[in-house]
Amino acid sequence: MLDKQQVRTQQSDEYIIAVGDEPLSEIQKISSLYNSTKAFFFVDSNVLELQSELVESITALYDEPIVYSIPAGESSKSTQQWMEMVTFCLSHNPDRNVPVYAIGGGVTGDLGGFVASTVMRGLPLIHIPTTLLAIVDSSIGGKTGINHPAGKNLVGTFYQPKAVIAPLNALLTLSDEEFLCGFGEILKYGAIADPDILTILSTRDLSELRDNTSLLKSIVQRCIKVKTDIVIRDTKESNLRMILNYGHTFAHAIEKQLGYGKISHGQAVYIGMIAAGILSRELGATIKEELIEQHFNSMMISGIDIAITPEQLVSAMQTDKKRSATGLRFVVLKQYGRPYVEQVDDIELIYKVWAATLTKIKELKLQYA
Amino acid sequence: MLDKQQVRTQQSDEYIIAVGDEPLSEIQKISSLYNSTKAFFFVDSNVLELQSELVESITALYDEPIVYSIPAGESSKSTQQWMEMVTFCLSHNPDRNVPVYAIGGGVTGDLGGFVASTVMRGLPLIHIPTTLLAIVDSSIGGKTGINHPAGKNLVGTFYQPKAVIAPLNALLTLSDEEFLCGFGEILKYGAIADPDILTILSTRDLSELRDNTSLLKSIVQRCIKVKTDIVIRDTKESNLRMILNYGHTFAHAIEKQLGYGKISHGQAVYIGMIAAGILSRELGATIKEELIEQHFNSMMISGIDIAITPEQLVSAMQTDKKRSATGLRFVVLKQYGRPYVEQVDDIELIYKVWAATLTKIKELKLQYA
Repeated sequence: MLDKQQVRTQQSDEYIIAVGDEPLSEIQKISSLYNSTKAFFFVDSNVLELQSELVESITALYDEPIVYSIPAGESSKSTQQWMEMVTFCLSHNPDRNVPVYAIGGGVTGDLGGFVASTVMRGLPLIHIPTTLLAIVDSSIGGKTGINHPAGKNLVGTFYQPKAVIAPLNALLTLSDEEFLCGFGEILKYGAIADPDILTILSTRDLSELRDNTSLLKSIVQRCIKVKTDIVIRDTKESNLRMILNYGHTFAHAIEKQLGYGKISHGQAVYIGMIAAGILSRELGATIKEELIEQHFNSMMISGIDIAITPEQLVSAMQTDKKRSATGLRFVVLKQYGRPYVEQVDDIELIYKVWAATLTKIKELKLQYA
Repeated sequence: MLDKQQVRTQQSDEYIIAVGDEPLSEIQKISSLYNSTKAFFFVDSNVLELQSELVESITALYDEPIVYSIPAGESSKSTQQWMEMVTFCLSHNPDRNVPVYAIGGGVTGDLGGFVASTVMRGLPLIHIPTTLLAIVDSSIGGKTGINHPAGKNLVGTFYQPKAVIAPLNALLTLSDEEFLCGFGEILKYGAIADPDILTILSTRDLSELRDNTSLLKSIVQRCIKVKTDIVIRDTKESNLRMILNYGHTFAHAIEKQLGYGKISHGQAVYIGMIAAGILSRELGATIKEELIEQHFNSMMISGIDIAITPEQLVSAMQTDKKRSATGLRFVVLKQYGRPYVEQVDDIELIYKVWAATLTKIKELKLQYA
């Protein structure tokens, strides 16, 4: 005999995403929610140097700010680094009300979020994203994670922040390359949900948005709206949220084959979208490839050398965590703004898409050189 | 200027807790929810040996069962062991539908749950608790965790299982000591919420419940009801859930001072409750200490030698993760069934309670020897 009880736990996470030039008053408001004189500040080492004023204005909100500098770069998303930060936190005897501020780009947010979610089963987490990519993508949605030899972001949690506060003026200190790589995800939002983004950007050189703050802010807001609309309806990436991975199955293969850090995530996503566009058309879509491809030069501003074969890329896809048990699943488009998920069992098709993508990159290099 | 968007994510986790002699049909039902031919089975090494039939009947539900034996004992709750299991999982190329079955006691559930919650940001988790302690306590409520040099369970997540299925017949293979240590938490439920448990047990020798399955089952169900009622209302241990820590602040200090594994968690909680009872009376409670203390002999069946000073125990409390920033917080009783949380800033009082507890243990040893 088996006696049963049904248990239902409900959890609702509510948070503010604020974008603008004057983040401090909002950060102050958030800090007052936690009755703590201490706070942890996980800060990207470059941000600590280049944006010392921003960092100091935030740490000044606490009597006992505890600053930890995260070595810049993807290689910090390691178990060793995670463990070191966990030990660092615990050495300061925190209680569970001590907030964690993650100040930096995607690496800081992913790693810092994973630390915050696992120390004492979770400290309050506040994201202060300082790169365009982190503002429109990684800081929103509650994904945390580190890398594993088996693949990118294979270790992590779903953990919602208490607030995301994006200081747009921080973008002024980014290098051109860092700034532009954020457009990988921005173009993605255009492709999957808000084609107006593609149209607006089609008449622009992406780098000019840096000085056009009002346009940049409106584009950023559109992106955040797309992402939050999806994330609210699907917190744990069961289904709908998959469309946010448009281009990503391809991108992860590139990142894995080249080695982490050899290509930026934004650039990899951009190339992944070229591939996903080719696959979409193979499956019958009618989409204008120029809307994505015309930004090749901006996205690849630092040059690109992808000395990989289609065979290597196909093989790298076999361990992507978004695949299903039986075949590879891809987000593809019917047209811009109309994504769907397609399982592809025919590995020859994927091979063909990779070959066409590599050829396309060579053409674009010549065309926009 | 700062533009704001409000985001609200909702997450509801629903699961079955089933207790009884014939768990297989329920496990089969759960397994059919996940479209997977593979499953991970994290099994305590003792269980793998002593309950091979149970384990084989469950693994037989899958075409590709992947079994991992967890070395029995608290020392397995380490970051090294966690990392090894994460790598083990990833080496089998799982997709996110591959369920994790944690079959064993508290160590297996805590560690296996932490692995399940962090591999690819979460695989479906099914607890099959095989010790009394795990059935009434650790398998319910979504806590996962491992130990850190700074303290017990300081690294972990909140992660709800998809089901908890408790095979009561598994208890027959436990040693007397393992079986009895489950009563630490059972007596706790009696003390904080369901004093009838204390009354029912007061006329019994605890070890006789092993053969009295119907009484055992009804006691177990009462405990599960207490715990789930609390956990449902407070998933993340913000407030109400703290009362489940009755005796635990004291218990953790003992475990930490003696070294993990030198005393069972149930025994530590039991002694912690003697201390919490003394503190409660110091603060004005009128509770019959015999209802707890009369089980001393059963709980300490293997003997006990606590060669620790009150000073050492007070100092070990300084890093307990349930303390607040300013002082130590304790769950204490007004009377049985009426717990409250009290912050104690007067360290002398805690010293006094520890001294009285150590004296009491000596008396009980003589009285029940």
